[in-house]
Amino acid sequence: MDNYMTYSYEKLKKFCDDAFEKFGFTKKEAGIITDVLLLSDLFGIESHGTQRLVRYHKSIEKGMIKVEAKPEVVFETPVSAVIDGHEGMGQIIAYQAMEMAIEKAKKVGMALVTVRNSNHYGIAGFYAKMACDQGLIGISTTNTNPIMVPTYGRTAMLGTNPIAIAFPAEPYPFLFDASTTVVTRGKLEVYNKLDKPLHDGWAIDSTGAACNDAKKVLTCINDHLGGGILPLGGISEDSGSHKGYGWGMVAELFTSIISLGTTSDKTGLGGKGGICHGFLVIDPKVFGNADAIKEHLSQYLEALRNAPKAEGQTRIYTHGEKEVLAMADRMKNGISINKNTVAEMRDMAQFLGMDVVSYLGEEALSIKGKESVYK
Amino acid sequence: MDNYMTYSYEKLKKFCDDAFEKFGFTKKEAGIITDVLLLSDLFGIESHGTQRLVRYHKSIEKGMIKVEAKPEVVFETPVSAVIDGHEGMGQIIAYQAMEMAIEKAKKVGMALVTVRNSNHYGIAGFYAKMACDQGLIGISTTNTNPIMVPTYGRTAMLGTNPIAIAFPAEPYPFLFDASTTVVTRGKLEVYNKLDKPLHDGWAIDSTGAACNDAKKVLTCINDHLGGGILPLGGISEDSGSHKGYGWGMVAELFTSIISLGTTSDKTGLGGKGGICHGFLVIDPKVFGNADAIKEHLSQYLEALRNAPKAEGQTRIYTHGEKEVLAMADRMKNGISINKNTVAEMRDMAQFLGMDVVSYLGEEALSIKGKESVYK
Repeated sequence: MDNYMTYSYEKLKKFCDDAFEKFGFTKKEAGIITDVLLLSDLFGIESHGTQRLVRYHKSIEKGMIKVEAKPEVVFETPVSAVIDGHEGMGQIIAYQAMEMAIEKAKKVGMALVTVRNSNHYGIAGFYAKMACDQGLIGISTTNTNPIMVPTYGRTAMLGTNPIAIAFPAEPYPFLFDASTTVVTRGKLEVYNKLDKPLHDGWAIDSTGAACNDAKKVLTCINDHLGGGILPLGGISEDSGSHKGYGWGMVAELFTSIISLGTTSDKTGLGGKGGICHGFLVIDPKVFGNADAIKEHLSQYLEALRNAPKAEGQTRIYTHGEKEVLAMADRMKNGISINKNTVAEMRDMAQFLGMDVVSYLGEEALSIKGKESVYK
Repeated sequence: MDNYMTYSYEKLKKFCDDAFEKFGFTKKEAGIITDVLLLSDLFGIESHGTQRLVRYHKSIEKGMIKVEAKPEVVFETPVSAVIDGHEGMGQIIAYQAMEMAIEKAKKVGMALVTVRNSNHYGIAGFYAKMACDQGLIGISTTNTNPIMVPTYGRTAMLGTNPIAIAFPAEPYPFLFDASTTVVTRGKLEVYNKLDKPLHDGWAIDSTGAACNDAKKVLTCINDHLGGGILPLGGISEDSGSHKGYGWGMVAELFTSIISLGTTSDKTGLGGKGGICHGFLVIDPKVFGNADAIKEHLSQYLEALRNAPKAEGQTRIYTHGEKEVLAMADRMKNGISINKNTVAEMRDMAQFLGMDVVSYLGEEALSIKGKESVYK
């Protein structure tokens, strides 16, 4: 871990909170954005955590994310709402939308709130977990910039389109949070850095042919030449490509379609994010005894964890288990941040007039990162 | 198609309707079961159509499916219901449950009805389509006998656990209906008959090792030795195995868990099916203009079909398109039924005292099928 520095959760929280306030958010808003980002780091999902700080800052500078925007409820029933995010910060809009879905579900049993004209909202699981923390079933999904190529196509028409589902259980909830692509762009970037060939079934080039060359695929994507990442299920129907593509479509239905928002293929055009989200909350009480349901799931999850393992394997995980273990470890031992990210945070802090040493420590000053984007 | 005989839809409908009445179902019940089976044949999903007739009959004879059972609503709110199927015929219970979900959704905007103690219900898509035919968003899911091995396990703990989602669109709806396993057992049986090696990422043997030998995997499954079919995403997390396993769990949550029913790993024990279903219906009106939403989706689906194709490919399908094309063809040109299935239907018809020639034609008498199960 030579390329990493370790910070306590509190240290990073203070840094992010203050940075987001410097961006122009209120104290409460800054707290929400920080919570989403740091939950990702705590869960061990480095790609969606502090690593994204600078990207958010740059999107604000470019005017893609509007700090002052206030989400507006444009249609509402007791079981539903449509929110126009007016190009605000995804996390703030999504938090408010999920809070609304929770409030409605508590009253009528279930509710679906959909959002248009937002921006990237971080990890989908954060919002599903919000409902679950209150004993409810939470579902959260978002579309994203186009990167998934539909089965037998050669240009990206859907996003990574993650869907997260959280369901109360003991000793920890079921929390399934996954992109509907076979892998995410972050994985391609890691393989590119390591100069490793991509696995079969991950990506295609601009002709639509299978491609194991990470650099080539990333160039295709970045230069809008075509190509992209395959759906969960890979390149052909034999391995279920149409199923991953179907799940990507389901994310689209409950985000861009029902909100009359921007479908993934048209996001990011004209300097507008256009990202859409969907939040479904169900109170298990509407099926009778919520405690019995929780107990029933807990027993099944335990049976899964205890089921016989494949030879050479020591563990069957249930969804959300790895995240709980990662979180406990990181709250105790701190969160490791890639030095490139620390350097970016330092450059941003200097730009914002924050005291680097008190936030990130003396060592942060001497890290040689990539060329600073703050010039 | 030497191994097939072709019948008109009407001919098969008459046969199935009358056969189910002979089983002891009312005229209305028989009509429902037939509709589910024949939609599968019309869609080109041979495995779930008339091919299953004899299996249903045998399950009734064994007492696993109880003809006289009446589904009972054991818990209900305006947005939900829990139905105990009392071990009745899956199609009848599921039809009633979906009708109830539709009725509630029309009143309050959305509803989720869950079912326990049922039996196999045919194709999940039939019930999702019921809602869609009325301009609503329909979701249908079921658990099944255990066949999916969780990632890094070696015994089946989940079923094929299909999930179907139908959403109104023109010129035909979006209808995604897929098992959450990478393939279904039927595919293994086909490869076994053809003596073809299974694709990588489809199945494992009783030790949990990858296995391309269809006969071996089927023996493992049939003799309860362990092994089974892998989740969508194959054998490792690198190809997204944990995601298919996650979707299988989602099916479980909305079927066996919230109904306090039997999880897939415990279905079929003690001569009891124990299959559970879930039906979610959402009225798009609760998001404003249902027509505009339908139009928005229709345009996106068209953009997908028109998107550039991979080299060597001529078509990008949207979900439900193949089924619509197959149905139009079969309504016009008839439905091809495997001669083994025709022989089974003939033997069953003779057992039930039906006039084989008038239902299935002269030729049916001379087909040499497998040894009759009606002795």
